[in-house]
Amino acid sequence: MERDELVAAYRGYIACLNRQDWDELGRYVGEEVRYNGERVGLAGYRSMLEGDFRAIPDLRFHIELLVCDPPHVASRLAFDCTPVGVLFGVPVNGRRVRFEENVFYEFREGRIASVLSIIDKAAIAAQI
Amino acid sequence: MERDELVAAYRGYIACLNRQDWDELGRYVGEEVRYNGERVGLAGYRSMLEGDFRAIPDLRFHIELLVCDPPHVASRLAFDCTPVGVLFGVPVNGRRVRFEENVFYEFREGRIASVLSIIDKAAIAAQI
Repeated sequence: MERDELVAAYRGYIACLNRQDWDELGRYVGEEVRYNGERVGLAGYRSMLEGDFRAIPDLRFHIELLVCDPPHVASRLAFDCTPVGVLFGVPVNGRRVRFEENVFYEFREGRIASVLSIIDKAAIAAQI
Repeated sequence: MERDELVAAYRGYIACLNRQDWDELGRYVGEEVRYNGERVGLAGYRSMLEGDFRAIPDLRFHIELLVCDPPHVASRLAFDCTPVGVLFGVPVNGRRVRFEENVFYEFREGRIASVLSIIDKAAIAAQI
């Protein structure tokens, strides 16, 4: 895919997450997707995202910075949310937290094949 | 700068860090550089890096993945090192740890103007 096409696909993916439109996830994410080096597959990836929305009912993915260099996308995602219980080992319990994620995606045949994510968990702990 | 020029500048920057060639740092880093939103300036940035090498004498920056979309570079850096004491609050004390950093850079007039970094500190804690 060309740069503009890849940017559009990535924005479509983020919109899909924000709609929690899990039946559409396979349009954007490959069957054999890997997350931080581990093969979780589309079903495992969907489960992970569903779990994220259970933990953070008002979860919303906001693209703060998008760097696209086919076949890779790098994105800085910003979160401003109120997780219900314990998040990444931190007892947030409904308080508002803001944090970022710096994440790389590799696309193959129009779909995400690999995700390498680092979430700023220390920022969450510092706010609680 | 064009993509290839920016990639070359970024690789030059990483080589400069690995040589600990602090007098050359200003070729790559702007006087008004911001680190995670805070204006640290070239002198503050240099001090931070010198501190990193004191904490981790065998520190070496290895580019695992480079995504370049002018004026931005996103890089996944891999570290395999033996920090001497406490690192990010974790008493590493000379043990070997491996961890990653996902980091975005904005270049302006050929130099790094802003750095948005997330280091996988949780990975270090999990290894100790």
